[in-house]
Amino acid sequence: MDSDALVLHEDRFFDPDPAVRAIARALYERTRDLPLVCPHGHVDPALLANNDFFPEPTTLIVVPDHYIFRMLYSQGVPMESMGVPTRDGSAVESDPRKIWQTFADHYHLFRGTPTGAWLNQELYEVFGVRTRLNGRTAMRVYDQIAERLQSDEFRPRALFDRFNIEVLSTTDAAADPLEHHRTIRESGWKGRVIPTFRPDAVFRIAQPGWDGHIAALASASGMAIGDYAAFVDALQDRRDFFRSMGAAATDHGVVEPYTERLADDEAQRLFARALAGEATAADQRRFEAHMLMEMARMSTEDGLVMQLHPGALRDHNTGVFERFGLDKGADIPVATEYTRNLRPLLNEYGNDPRLTLILFTLDESTYARELAPLAGHYPALRLGPPWWFHDSAQGMKRFREQTTETAGLYNTAGFNDDTRAFCSIPARHDLSRRMDADFLAGLVARHVIEAEDAHELARALAYDLARKTYRLDQPAEVPESAAMAGVGA
Amino acid sequence: MDSDALVLHEDRFFDPDPAVRAIARALYERTRDLPLVCPHGHVDPALLANNDFFPEPTTLIVVPDHYIFRMLYSQGVPMESMGVPTRDGSAVESDPRKIWQTFADHYHLFRGTPTGAWLNQELYEVFGVRTRLNGRTAMRVYDQIAERLQSDEFRPRALFDRFNIEVLSTTDAAADPLEHHRTIRESGWKGRVIPTFRPDAVFRIAQPGWDGHIAALASASGMAIGDYAAFVDALQDRRDFFRSMGAAATDHGVVEPYTERLADDEAQRLFARALAGEATAADQRRFEAHMLMEMARMSTEDGLVMQLHPGALRDHNTGVFERFGLDKGADIPVATEYTRNLRPLLNEYGNDPRLTLILFTLDESTYARELAPLAGHYPALRLGPPWWFHDSAQGMKRFREQTTETAGLYNTAGFNDDTRAFCSIPARHDLSRRMDADFLAGLVARHVIEAEDAHELARALAYDLARKTYRLDQPAEVPESAAMAGVGA
Amino acid sequence: MDSDALVLHEDRFFDPDPAVRAIARALYERTRDLPLVCPHGHVDPALLANNDFFPEPTTLIVVPDHYIFRMLYSQGVPMESMGVPTRDGSAVESDPRKIWQTFADHYHLFRGTPTGAWLNQELYEVFGVRTRLNGRTAMRVYDQIAERLQSDEFRPRALFDRFNIEVLSTTDAAADPLEHHRTIRESGWKGRVIPTFRPDAVFRIAQPGWDGHIAALASASGMAIGDYAAFVDALQDRRDFFRSMGAAATDHGVVEPYTERLADDEAQRLFARALAGEATAADQRRFEAHMLMEMARMSTEDGLVMQLHPGALRDHNTGVFERFGLDKGADIPVATEYTRNLRPLLNEYGNDPRLTLILFTLDESTYARELAPLAGHYPALRLGPPWWFHDSAQGMKRFREQTTETAGLYNTAGFNDDTRAFCSIPARHDLSRRMDADFLAGLVARHVIEAEDAHELARALAYDLARKTYRLDQPAEVPESAAMAGVGA
Repeated sequence: MDSDALVLHEDRFFDPDPAVRAIARALYERTRDLPLVCPHGHVDPALLANNDFFPEPTTLIVVPDHYIFRMLYSQGVPMESMGVPTRDGSAVESDPRKIWQTFADHYHLFRGTPTGAWLNQELYEVFGVRTRLNGRTAMRVYDQIAERLQSDEFRPRALFDRFNIEVLSTTDAAADPLEHHRTIRESGWKGRVIPTFRPDAVFRIAQPGWDGHIAALASASGMAIGDYAAFVDALQDRRDFFRSMGAAATDHGVVEPYTERLADDEAQRLFARALAGEATAADQRRFEAHMLMEMARMSTEDGLVMQLHPGALRDHNTGVFERFGLDKGADIPVATEYTRNLRPLLNEYGNDPRLTLILFTLDESTYARELAPLAGHYPALRLGPPWWFHDSAQGMKRFREQTTETAGLYNTAGFNDDTRAFCSIPARHDLSRRMDADFLAGLVARHVIEAEDAHELARALAYDLARKTYRLDQPAEVPESAAMAGVGA
Repeated sequence: MDSDALVLHEDRFFDPDPAVRAIARALYERTRDLPLVCPHGHVDPALLANNDFFPEPTTLIVVPDHYIFRMLYSQGVPMESMGVPTRDGSAVESDPRKIWQTFADHYHLFRGTPTGAWLNQELYEVFGVRTRLNGRTAMRVYDQIAERLQSDEFRPRALFDRFNIEVLSTTDAAADPLEHHRTIRESGWKGRVIPTFRPDAVFRIAQPGWDGHIAALASASGMAIGDYAAFVDALQDRRDFFRSMGAAATDHGVVEPYTERLADDEAQRLFARALAGEATAADQRRFEAHMLMEMARMSTEDGLVMQLHPGALRDHNTGVFERFGLDKGADIPVATEYTRNLRPLLNEYGNDPRLTLILFTLDESTYARELAPLAGHYPALRLGPPWWFHDSAQGMKRFREQTTETAGLYNTAGFNDDTRAFCSIPARHDLSRRMDADFLAGLVARHVIEAEDAHELARALAYDLARKTYRLDQPAEVPESAAMAGVGA
Repeated sequence: MDSDALVLHEDRFFDPDPAVRAIARALYERTRDLPLVCPHGHVDPALLANNDFFPEPTTLIVVPDHYIFRMLYSQGVPMESMGVPTRDGSAVESDPRKIWQTFADHYHLFRGTPTGAWLNQELYEVFGVRTRLNGRTAMRVYDQIAERLQSDEFRPRALFDRFNIEVLSTTDAAADPLEHHRTIRESGWKGRVIPTFRPDAVFRIAQPGWDGHIAALASASGMAIGDYAAFVDALQDRRDFFRSMGAAATDHGVVEPYTERLADDEAQRLFARALAGEATAADQRRFEAHMLMEMARMSTEDGLVMQLHPGALRDHNTGVFERFGLDKGADIPVATEYTRNLRPLLNEYGNDPRLTLILFTLDESTYARELAPLAGHYPALRLGPPWWFHDSAQGMKRFREQTTETAGLYNTAGFNDDTRAFCSIPARHDLSRRMDADFLAGLVARHVIEAEDAHELARALAYDLARKTYRLDQPAEVPESAAMAGVGA
């Protein structure tokens, strides 16, 4: 047998115990072909708006994926040699074949990692590669993918349809004109690609560049933003516009999930200070806390599902940030407190049936201690799937084992792939469906749940819960004013 | 086969691996019929004092169990529709059959949870139900239980005997006259029901209502409590009285296990401030820290085992608390620090062979990091079983896996059911015995311990350690003064 | 069959599932006989310098091992009865047979602990004992070991060779003259025993006794240490000397891994305050943080690998410390923060290919949250093996499960035994090789990695990575000045 043969075992990731494995396989068979619901991710909508051919393998797979180049960097491979572009435009490796060879030479680093699993499945199933990637096979694999990328079947919309994506959410700044989403809608193509409202930048009043984000927001909303009240009006206007473009959710990234309602005049005072360029980090902390309250309030009114992603300290490596910019694999988690931080928000809105708030974490010690007890009580709360570093086989296992007994399975929000790597989407959903099938199979084999209930649950975890939690099973209702705003934008 | 048939599989919760399962089963067989030692719980002693018939299924099983109604509430079912009484007496659903139907309609929420496991076993073994509970079968199951509850075999004392309970500890406020315990003792019935001294309320000097608790303590002890010295005397008097009524232990609930010995005049000053209604939250923090030291001191003298339950932020949901009161499923854990907080207490009393201090936690990250190293050193320390949210199959597994290697098995305190749901007691002990058998079976199958040692250990974890740690294997010695106090109370 | 027979099962610690076990066994067979690389430990070099006969079993095995006597102490056995010497010289049990009997009487406490596993293997393989140790067999086992200890094959160097130790690192204070290392080198014996530079004591400027450590450092370096600059020079001089004696690494123990670069005049000011006996705990915190930066700087220049061991609160039990001194089983971990604390150091040196910084932890909640993400990005970082309380079967399993998916296997540093118990070294490496084989076997059985890759990885985890990370595969290059310093010392 060819030792370079790439094989995807049918039972990969399942428990080796024959009894568990047989049940897992049966459960997985029920979900493997269900459509993919992708309610949270970072795919560039231009991809599907333009529907251009993908350039070549390295630009598609290696250069934009910080999961990949951070691992090589951690072992001493310069990011320049991976072709990661610099902020000042200074030269980096530009020969895609050379970069691909470097990548392949270090492919062993991904053994046992989710990136390795996703890549193997992507190569095998999306591109039909049957050769294990390594230093010897690098060019052979490259050529094969490159050839495929030139055919119509590998253009983005064709892949979207082949991947059986039912809906794909992007993530978009508050001021984003959503032109690509509009292009998609007007193209006649039936793929459902919807935006998500992510206003983080306009809440960070002490950050350099905040004024630019406010200017963009003013421009996008067609409103002058001279005070806090106008700011809130502009946000509501943009939310309405996003809804008119199909948005189901908002998304909020903070270091600490601190919430606090400020008096109106206090919020106004902080905002004025920010406009004057005088806001401090402490001001920002309170302003962000207050704006999370406002986002929850607006969600109770307009029905957008609220997502909260706390706990990443961004750009830990200052040298890498200065040379290469954001999202270069140097965001590092910190311990995160939910119980006290979220209390103000949950006391004000957590009992309101109109709100759905989905919590994510990078701090697994909060699963059993804080998140499951909170989600097992507050009607508004749901737990998002294991996020980022924890979106992995063992990470998924820990999530289920540490949340299920207190929160139950129905207080979780289903899977989302959270990726900017479009071609990895099926592999990510597949891993999740396998791990959930395996978890449920363990419960069946230990006689904790009945087999027939497990089948219903497998489908819920793979498909139904994501649709329901993000309200994607409901026809979008477009507010009249929003439709107007949409036209005016 | 009837898909509504309720089946309890003989091997439930055991590892599916045939080798492990066979060992687990054999170990479990050695412990399943041992008497139940219940050294910590919240059963209302009036139940056994009065020995009345239980009213009907809903009042018995659903309405008082916050594990149940919090889960339905988390999915949008109003607590009113579950019959949870309001503080202001405003109307809630009062038809027990309607409530039971709502409960049954949502029974799928408990799949994979310990509540689901306990309920199934309780229905099956206590009430002889052979039908899975769901929306269709709700009334059939209700009627069957209702019928049983009318027979003498289902009165509390009969169940106590049938459950094979060797001893049952209740939890009682410092000022409690323990009249129900007296009634039981004087009834001639041989069931051993003993109180536990829980003085939290009189330590919380900044809480509204503290003065009422002090007045009750004064009345119960027959002492005027005009200063700190009298307060300490009254506490000692009550401890003596509790001992005279059979108490083996005290219990202490705090948010943070902070300990600090105050100088006498400082303690006196704080107490005086409290009497004047001027104590602050910071005062209370230090006073509670000091009183934990005092409780440890008294335990070295009177032999009451000391239990410490930190880490629950009570009544997180203010709206629910205001409408429904305490213990409504909205107590949420917080991260808890033991190493530094307990150092003063352990330095003063932790080497004293007369003290036994049992630590509990809601923060599993402390198992391996703090609790096991502390218990693996200090002679006074023992680790209580996984508590509350962690009193579950996976919670028990994590407890054993994360404490055994550092603390050993003999520094753990055996199981306790910690429940107010009397009829769930056998199911809770059974789950614990199964999970401990399974854990030990894993060690045997991996050749870490010998099979014969595992048999001895299984018995220790199920029975011996609880009796020994709580000193329930010793004849109670009643101090003369306490007997007097008992008479006077 | 003799129920007292001690048996080491060939498959101990492997997963009971037959498929996994077969793979684990095959992987383990590839690594079991590889030489032992011991880059971090606490064996007394005098042992190998003098090569005397070990005295008798109790002095060898029980008295110096705080893993053993802490466990007995936790169950009420006085340390005096274990022969632990007091600081004031007051009498303790001195009959080794009596102490051994006490130890054997309590041997059941070690069931399921790594100490139990190591001891059983040490007794079986090193001393040829075939009898389980317990109260009945105590004297029989004692006599057998005692007899062996009188033969030449059981002298330290013979055991070193028989254990197949390739290199053994000790841990030595900054001022240590390394005379035993010199004796070994000059003896003609080929065993490679190298020092590790551990300067903690001279960084703790607020600790009683600091001036003594500075005086010793001055004496050892032959330099007057009148100011901060001289202090830094003396440290560099000692590092050079350690390198000349074969050192590969430095080691640093701190409570909190806080790092901060001070301005030179600020460092000078703190150091002057320390010389005047006026340094505060806050001063020390900043000085230690700064000296970690300096150690990283020097490592980039002299190539010594830097090890950081934070998170132990030493001598938690003041009474035990006052009576018995350091390292008596009362060091208790605390929660540890890496992301923010290490940022200054990693920003300054973490991208430098000349630095290798190995991180350890006693706070497992940081594995997936902080350590794996940091090690999966910074080129200088590697993760040390599970440390101390976590150097156990389950501890190793959690380490692999919680770090592999984000950091990969190649960002880990291989095993080290970290022990002062010389005769336990083979057992410790064996447990690690078994658990790594078992972990990899699980990945193969779940089709996450290929079997042939697992074989390569098993060898890397058991042998190659330790050699590579600690640069033990490189010929030591001795700086000229250092060789001089070595001569002058």
